[in-house]
Amino acid sequence: MTSLKVNPDLQKERSTCTFNIEELTNLLDTGAEHTAKRRALEEKIFNLKELKDDVPEEFLSHKDKYENAIRKAVMLHTIVQRNDPIKTNVNNFDKSNFRSTSNSIFKDVSPFLLQFSMFVPTIVGQGDEEQRKYWLERALKMEIIGTYAQTELGHGTFIRGLETEATYDEKTEEFIMNSPSLSSYKWWPGGLGHTSNYCIVMAQLKIKGKSYGMKPFVVQIRDEETHMPMPGVKVGEIGAKFAFNTANNGFLGFDNVRIPRRHMLMRFSQVLKDGTFKSSSNPRLAYGTMVMVRVTIVNTACTLLSKAATIAIRYSAVRHQSQLKANEPEPQILDYVTQQHKLFISIATSHAYMFCSYWLWDLYTNYHNEQNDGNFERLPELHALTCVLKVISSTDCTALVERCRMSCGGHGYMLSSNLPQLYSLSTAACTYEGENTVLLLQTARALVKAWDQASQGIALNPTMAYLADRTPAGPWDSSLDGIIKAFQKVSVGKLSSSVSSFHEYAKSGLSMEDAWNKASVQLIGAAEAYGRAVVLSVYKAEIERYSKIVSPSLKAVLSDLLEMYIIYKALEKTGDLLLYTQLSEKEVKALQRRYEDLLEKIRPNAVGLVDAYDYRDEVLHSTLGSYDGFAYEHLMEEAMKSPLNAEPVNQSFHKYLKPLMKGKI
Amino acid sequence: MTSLKVNPDLQKERSTCTFNIEELTNLLDTGAEHTAKRRALEEKIFNLKELKDDVPEEFLSHKDKYENAIRKAVMLHTIVQRNDPIKTNVNNFDKSNFRSTSNSIFKDVSPFLLQFSMFVPTIVGQGDEEQRKYWLERALKMEIIGTYAQTELGHGTFIRGLETEATYDEKTEEFIMNSPSLSSYKWWPGGLGHTSNYCIVMAQLKIKGKSYGMKPFVVQIRDEETHMPMPGVKVGEIGAKFAFNTANNGFLGFDNVRIPRRHMLMRFSQVLKDGTFKSSSNPRLAYGTMVMVRVTIVNTACTLLSKAATIAIRYSAVRHQSQLKANEPEPQILDYVTQQHKLFISIATSHAYMFCSYWLWDLYTNYHNEQNDGNFERLPELHALTCVLKVISSTDCTALVERCRMSCGGHGYMLSSNLPQLYSLSTAACTYEGENTVLLLQTARALVKAWDQASQGIALNPTMAYLADRTPAGPWDSSLDGIIKAFQKVSVGKLSSSVSSFHEYAKSGLSMEDAWNKASVQLIGAAEAYGRAVVLSVYKAEIERYSKIVSPSLKAVLSDLLEMYIIYKALEKTGDLLLYTQLSEKEVKALQRRYEDLLEKIRPNAVGLVDAYDYRDEVLHSTLGSYDGFAYEHLMEEAMKSPLNAEPVNQSFHKYLKPLMKGKI
Repeated sequence: MTSLKVNPDLQKERSTCTFNIEELTNLLDTGAEHTAKRRALEEKIFNLKELKDDVPEEFLSHKDKYENAIRKAVMLHTIVQRNDPIKTNVNNFDKSNFRSTSNSIFKDVSPFLLQFSMFVPTIVGQGDEEQRKYWLERALKMEIIGTYAQTELGHGTFIRGLETEATYDEKTEEFIMNSPSLSSYKWWPGGLGHTSNYCIVMAQLKIKGKSYGMKPFVVQIRDEETHMPMPGVKVGEIGAKFAFNTANNGFLGFDNVRIPRRHMLMRFSQVLKDGTFKSSSNPRLAYGTMVMVRVTIVNTACTLLSKAATIAIRYSAVRHQSQLKANEPEPQILDYVTQQHKLFISIATSHAYMFCSYWLWDLYTNYHNEQNDGNFERLPELHALTCVLKVISSTDCTALVERCRMSCGGHGYMLSSNLPQLYSLSTAACTYEGENTVLLLQTARALVKAWDQASQGIALNPTMAYLADRTPAGPWDSSLDGIIKAFQKVSVGKLSSSVSSFHEYAKSGLSMEDAWNKASVQLIGAAEAYGRAVVLSVYKAEIERYSKIVSPSLKAVLSDLLEMYIIYKALEKTGDLLLYTQLSEKEVKALQRRYEDLLEKIRPNAVGLVDAYDYRDEVLHSTLGSYDGFAYEHLMEEAMKSPLNAEPVNQSFHKYLKPLMKGKI
Repeated sequence: MTSLKVNPDLQKERSTCTFNIEELTNLLDTGAEHTAKRRALEEKIFNLKELKDDVPEEFLSHKDKYENAIRKAVMLHTIVQRNDPIKTNVNNFDKSNFRSTSNSIFKDVSPFLLQFSMFVPTIVGQGDEEQRKYWLERALKMEIIGTYAQTELGHGTFIRGLETEATYDEKTEEFIMNSPSLSSYKWWPGGLGHTSNYCIVMAQLKIKGKSYGMKPFVVQIRDEETHMPMPGVKVGEIGAKFAFNTANNGFLGFDNVRIPRRHMLMRFSQVLKDGTFKSSSNPRLAYGTMVMVRVTIVNTACTLLSKAATIAIRYSAVRHQSQLKANEPEPQILDYVTQQHKLFISIATSHAYMFCSYWLWDLYTNYHNEQNDGNFERLPELHALTCVLKVISSTDCTALVERCRMSCGGHGYMLSSNLPQLYSLSTAACTYEGENTVLLLQTARALVKAWDQASQGIALNPTMAYLADRTPAGPWDSSLDGIIKAFQKVSVGKLSSSVSSFHEYAKSGLSMEDAWNKASVQLIGAAEAYGRAVVLSVYKAEIERYSKIVSPSLKAVLSDLLEMYIIYKALEKTGDLLLYTQLSEKEVKALQRRYEDLLEKIRPNAVGLVDAYDYRDEVLHSTLGSYDGFAYEHLMEEAMKSPLNAEPVNQSFHKYLKPLMKGKI
């Protein structure tokens, strides 16, 4: 529709950018060699015509979406997985994998998602050597497709409440799997509906009438030749969702389904032929995977946000609206300070959490090595830390994805912008892998314990060490370090205050449990405050570290973003800062002014900053965010792909509208 | 699946409710006679088998969704509209209409939405007598289906920037409609895609080379017999959206389309045969419709929220999870204080905005009568007020709908819960009929003007009168009136502070426009603070008024909700209150304690309060929120309606999965 290659508005923005975009891309990729590797794979995948959709997914029926996704998943697998080494466990995973984009051929998600994210890792983590050998060979070759089923219709958070049973029958040396009620049906596993033929099932182990708690069992759920459900297996898909509609989430129930004894994964505990139960290894080892998954969620959260920011900022650079000054042309909406206020924080937040996720990954791998040497010392801290970072990254990034969407006005409501789907995908992380409120309460429990330990003079782990300093906040210091210190004072203050409330409720006659419950709104606030303090100091430390290796021009931009982030957060939490530090009204005004100046400073680099995420159009899937900036042309092109537009007159006119208008109904 | 009629958990809740549910229902309906009338219509519609969907809408393709919606819209029209008097204008509208539910036969929205919400009202408001007579007769009989097209692909907020042209040709006495560019295409009107055959088009009137601004024109866009687009008309649908997918939003472009001179709506200005332009009436009259639409948005916002609250609270009463105390059964999740914290504010917020919308409606109708007597005095205040109330009601209710959704954990992510759709519908209101930030800036402009007037001793309109009181806040008063007064001080403080910043920026050398832009983040905060102060005082005044007519038990519950709402808001805005009033740390703690006590007090009435909204299951469309409380049974029933579950093995197994697993791809 246009002969130009790039919208002049974007060209202008790119030409005035003050730093080298490629340098930032390399930094985000953790090295130029990783950028090159990522791009090579993208070239291979995104040029394949067969992996593109003629009719955009949003126009298809639920069933057609699934069938299309299976087609693409199989093709992607044959192209990518068969040629590349397959990641079989944690140790093969590298930070640079975080920015892999091959799954972007799905606008939603792959129905094979769980094969490599849960089925294979669980076998690696929980199978014994013989089991690993047998199942991994089959799974990695894709001879079988597996998933992981834990959550039940009536049970999520509370693992001990799961109802599915695996009862050992020593006569036949088999487990008998049963779903004793509707609420015990497995519900949610990706790929379970119509895709997988094997499933790791978490079930209550019962031997001779005695329960031994939740254990993992590999259960064949469909015939390998016919794909028909195995006898006694009730399986299907759970229906349409806010997103993840091509994930093929399923339900699963058992009616006396027998599986061999050796289908229980036996690394951590064993059932011998005669029914003897043995527990042989440190159960804390099993926590590792959960911690790792939460690290990846921090990264996923900021990745989704960086996509939304790319779309919204490019669109804001090409969209013109209203007048700043009479008789002047309509300005780019990116020139409105309210728009900058909506958007620039998204760039800084995505950086903050991306760098945090890299830092957290290193922390985790260090711990993983310590753990292999039998040292579990940092596990409680790592658990509390990954819980709260999972919570605040998913919460913040989801809220900002939505803010990006809404900053695009009506067009951000179009599915062709991809912004609604980014939101639906992002918000899921607030619920899966530990519901956010539940996780905050877990962090709060660890903090209250640390608080008591510090009161007794016991040394705390590094990220909690500041909790031991109970001195009141000194005079307000508006340097970045001063503000970070102030956030630590807020964290101490909120924890102290919620612990007091908890004790007061207990003293007033409530049981400890009821007192905890009644103080829980304050306790989750204290947990959040701890997470905020950590993110601020980690983000600053990481930028300082990078500053030594990047060019002065990039250093300047990264520092502006960091400063804006810290001041934004301070302005967001003035209530807490006024309560727990010596912040004054005058200082609040000064922070506000400094924030407004920083928006102005960042403005010329906004498009460069999102270009540096380096998302191909095939990854963004967005009419509003394409590299060329021809938003209106793309909106119209995508609309024309609607099957409704294939005919000038829809059949419902003849069937319903005409009879109505002619008074014949 | 169960022989019980109601889940015992819900039965227990209902039996312990302390007030008469029906009494509250009647209050919300503004009278028992309105409850009866609403229920009679619901009985008529919701028992019709033909208006129910065998396959839930979320499984259909975009095209099938549309065709199904047309079928239902036509049926609904023949049942309801032909039997009931049709609302032709504002004066026939009554507050009790706010709670009409007949459109709930659409899980999404009706493709006829714009016929009676925009096409007919615009003819009533902007047509002259002859035009009203001609068009209304045809429209009310549904001989024609119309819509209203203003927004263009490249233009929304800024009306003067619209590009569509209507050029008068005095030789033929016709207007020639043209779309001079892609960005001038109309984009968004509901029903425009494939449903309407007439459209009111806002276009730049041009006569003999001179522009006369935006005027409304009735344009025939499709042939009445064949429904084919008229010559020169390019029309189609804009594609899939976050919601409103059965609204059939469309695009529209013109290539020299000629329409008769009398198709311009001529109440406020006329073009005579010879091309003479005349403006005959007060243009301020045209503002009325816009103001009215915003009042209805306040009501729509809290209606959607009340549905989400019903679903989430009923589900929280039947869902059991984890343990509050060791060795006790899993409690209802409604017993967790964090869950109460998430949910009870939704009930109070829906009441606050519902009562506000009734109050605002009365204010508007009073104004409407004054206006007919030529008195426009309150228009600026009403404009500023409806802008900010539209903004904060849509913002708050949308955020709380989402909080309700997330409080239901994973199951809230299922479309069968209807919570995702309620969110997508709700969030749209933050953008349509005036983007929220744009509207806040309009309110800010009115406030700054009022601020200056007050400084000059000019009396302010009632809702802004407190801005004249510049005395510093007195000692903290924790009564409800004291807190409301404190919020007024915050409003004064934020307005004062942003006006100072604006002036400082101007003094520093920025132009007035740039200074305004740079202070705009603060200005929208001041606008919001004004809205908050108004809602708090209106909500309290209305509850006081109702308290005189309701039973003591209902009065007690309404008062608890009011108190909780005011304290919740104070805790939410401690930053502002600490800055602009004498609130202290000790008082904050006292408020927190009072809040926690109120949650406990409201807990026994939570289910009764949502039952009082009186939504039939056919209105809620929710597996989680049904009156009987059998959430798991309904989740499974709905999943079984998925067309994917109609076959045990999907065809993609044979086509793709089996070849992959057998190594044959």
